[in-house]
Amino acid sequence: MSYPEQFQGFATNDPKDWASPKLTSYQPKNFGARDVDIEVECCGICASELFALKNGWSHEPMACLSSKYGPKTQVVGHEVVGKIVAIGPEVTLCKVGDRVGLGAQASSCMKCSRCTSNNEQYCAKSVGTYCDPYEDGYVSQGGYASHVRAHEQFCFPVPPEIPSEFVAPLQCGGLTVFSPIKRNIAGKQNPRVAVIGIGGLGHMAIMISKALGAEVYAISRGYSKKEDASKMGADHFVATGEKDWNKGLDDHFDLILNCASSTTSLDLNALLPCLKVNCNFVSVGLPDIGEDFNVKPFSFFHNGCNMGSSKLGSREEAIELMQLAVEHNFRPWVETLKVSEAGVSEGLTRLDQGDVRYRFTLTGFHEFFGTGK
Amino acid sequence: MSYPEQFQGFATNDPKDWASPKLTSYQPKNFGARDVDIEVECCGICASELFALKNGWSHEPMACLSSKYGPKTQVVGHEVVGKIVAIGPEVTLCKVGDRVGLGAQASSCMKCSRCTSNNEQYCAKSVGTYCDPYEDGYVSQGGYASHVRAHEQFCFPVPPEIPSEFVAPLQCGGLTVFSPIKRNIAGKQNPRVAVIGIGGLGHMAIMISKALGAEVYAISRGYSKKEDASKMGADHFVATGEKDWNKGLDDHFDLILNCASSTTSLDLNALLPCLKVNCNFVSVGLPDIGEDFNVKPFSFFHNGCNMGSSKLGSREEAIELMQLAVEHNFRPWVETLKVSEAGVSEGLTRLDQGDVRYRFTLTGFHEFFGTGK
Ligand SMILES: NC(=O)c1ccc[n+]([C@@H]2O[C@H](COP(=O)([O-])OP(=O)(O)OC[C@H]3O[C@@H](n4cnc5c(N)ncnc54)[C@H](OP(=O)(O)O)[C@@H]3O)[C@@H](O)[C@H]2O)c1
Ligand SMILES: NC(=O)c1ccc[n+]([C@@H]2O[C@H](COP(=O)([O-])OP(=O)(O)OC[C@H]3O[C@@H](n4cnc5c(N)ncnc54)[C@H](OP(=O)(O)O)[C@@H]3O)[C@@H](O)[C@H]2O)c1
Ligand SMILES: [Zn+2]
Ligand SMILES: [Zn+2]
Ligand SMILES: [Zn+2]
Ligand SMILES: [Zn+2]
Repeated sequence: MSYPEQFQGFATNDPKDWASPKLTSYQPKNFGARDVDIEVECCGICASELFALKNGWSHEPMACLSSKYGPKTQVVGHEVVGKIVAIGPEVTLCKVGDRVGLGAQASSCMKCSRCTSNNEQYCAKSVGTYCDPYEDGYVSQGGYASHVRAHEQFCFPVPPEIPSEFVAPLQCGGLTVFSPIKRNIAGKQNPRVAVIGIGGLGHMAIMISKALGAEVYAISRGYSKKEDASKMGADHFVATGEKDWNKGLDDHFDLILNCASSTTSLDLNALLPCLKVNCNFVSVGLPDIGEDFNVKPFSFFHNGCNMGSSKLGSREEAIELMQLAVEHNFRPWVETLKVSEAGVSEGLTRLDQGDVRYRFTLTGFHEFFGTGK
Repeated sequence: MSYPEQFQGFATNDPKDWASPKLTSYQPKNFGARDVDIEVECCGICASELFALKNGWSHEPMACLSSKYGPKTQVVGHEVVGKIVAIGPEVTLCKVGDRVGLGAQASSCMKCSRCTSNNEQYCAKSVGTYCDPYEDGYVSQGGYASHVRAHEQFCFPVPPEIPSEFVAPLQCGGLTVFSPIKRNIAGKQNPRVAVIGIGGLGHMAIMISKALGAEVYAISRGYSKKEDASKMGADHFVATGEKDWNKGLDDHFDLILNCASSTTSLDLNALLPCLKVNCNFVSVGLPDIGEDFNVKPFSFFHNGCNMGSSKLGSREEAIELMQLAVEHNFRPWVETLKVSEAGVSEGLTRLDQGDVRYRFTLTGFHEFFGTGK
């Protein structure tokens, strides 16, 4: 069977096989009244896939193993760009034929105070685009696939100016950094932003902070990304491997945005004093479940600063971000890889090794799956 | 010798004698052009004195032991009310005869960006009222004394409506909770505030949150303070000793203000989800230096919340707070103790045991020191 009964994608259900998902067919979730089907054109590779496939964020077995119906294997992928090919009876936000982007969230309750105040990413009933059980027990399947099914709220209209391979990384990585940057520097005069971890998220955070008017510090472990960071628009570069890297940075930042995928190189007690009074260290980086933050209460005391996290962004913010990319003419730095078992495997493996400058987008979905007609 | 050459106060320099400071005479700091002398009328007892006297916030010996001039012993006390009896040549904010309040800060640079934006409490050159070295090496001496010398900026005019024993606790404890409450709920509709640790700071935080229009939850370890909290104005009471204490509190608070003097009973991973989206857990409580915050990055993720700290408050906020107390007619709950070696010892010992409802103010300074004429 093929679409619409069955989707095809690259799946695994064993963490030790994280680097080699296999082509498989599977039943999609039940088609909700506000659901849409996206025929995938391309899909970014976010480091969150690595945690999901390795099951690094959980002490439980992978969710797909106990799904109540649908596949017992897992397709990841959540920086999707594609064309709407089917819509539920109550869909109003998009129509068949639209090119849309879909990030890491596929559903929410649409009724709670968070859903009704542009914070639907924080809905308690939020369902992720991949690896996340719906209320009926179906575990969501992602975008390394012929098609994805999602609630229309999370399918964002894409401006025609941006080619799809650049649109893809904005859907999760870009949106995830845009939301806290905007929320934390809104209304500030000449804000200064520090971006830690110059990977997929971090490199977009530099460009977005710049476009939002900030003076930007790129903070990396070593010097290898210095020239690139400057081309992305960073005004300054700091290598934390250097002794005294934090010298002169006291009372400096309106926001420190951590985009690193591990806390092991983060010296919070040295970073927090670099914040201005009452400003925030926000970690969008989500490390392995075994890694905790350990920090001295007095590290927050001398500037009344805070540390916290941020999750994805709202639909409103996604649309705003893509408009910003058009107006300020910035694009993610993308290396494309042709989708296939080999292509998926290469992308995951190289991302895991840090061998990416700065985001992979899987392309060629139409050709591979025989779609796009 | 006596005033102005010498001040008298209750001092110790050995952490094991924390509960029994002895009457002593000592040289005051050099009289700066914007310094004033306060003849002390009364002084609150803040739990920070316990940490200072026990040297619980430091891995170094007590600062007074290596002071470059002045006493090698330590007088604490930083919720001072008294009368100005001398002013430096450049003083403009108060005059001889004024009744003023002095909290935990006695000096700052007055020039930096923090000092010039109502954040002088966060000045990098801030000097505390006690136990804190000035640039010239004198270690500051506090308010369990006949007199205190401080920069005029930190001597706040006191409204005539409030008797001195109630003014005292507002200078450190009251101001310390007012500042983060105000900064965190400003502009919010029907804000909800949780106050953890119903001691000196906590009980004032309840009254202040109420006066600022919040719905208030008092959060204590047990039930013993439930009735009192309700009289202070708390709308709800939660005992964290109870199983499932956090049930129903998800997505509930615009601010959680921690006023507990130890982190040992704080379950951050349970508290943080009780915050609304992007809201703050602020700890004004400062525990022993050995106690760290240990928290999972994912605990901040589902509401994009933050945790941090806050230090004292600005002069502007101190004045605003006292006006609020007049307008809303709230007063700290004070038990007075006559100042003397015995009185100081009783106050420190009982505070250490949690035997206070809810703040001690040492009184009778004029009688004891032969001042006030
Ligand atoms: N909060 C959310 O909603 C959300 C959404 C998407 C992704 N994420 C998370 O964001 C993080 C970054 O994702 P990404 O796709 O940008 O990953 P990425 O492309 O692999 O970049 C991560 C960067 O972190 C730094 N890094 C790598 N290993 C590190 C280590 N052991 N210690 C310290 N730093 C290290 C590196 O920067 P330098 O070489 O410059 O040091 C690297 O470029 C991941 O944890 C991902 O799960 C969160
Ligand atoms: N940030 C600043 O600028 C600033 C300024 C002043 C004071 N402080 C600090 O604020 C804290 C409170 O001072 P305070 O004068 O209000 O003290 P306090 O009167 O002793 O009250 C502290 C409260 O903390 C709770 N508590 C006591 N021991 C505890 C333990 N082992 N575990 C958990 N909770 C405990 C109790 O509340 P329950 O019985 O209700 O649980 C107690 O009433 C101190 O750490 C002090 O140094 C900070
Ligand atoms: Zn992602
Ligand atoms: Zn919702
Ligand atoms: Zn105090
Ligand atoms: Zn200053």
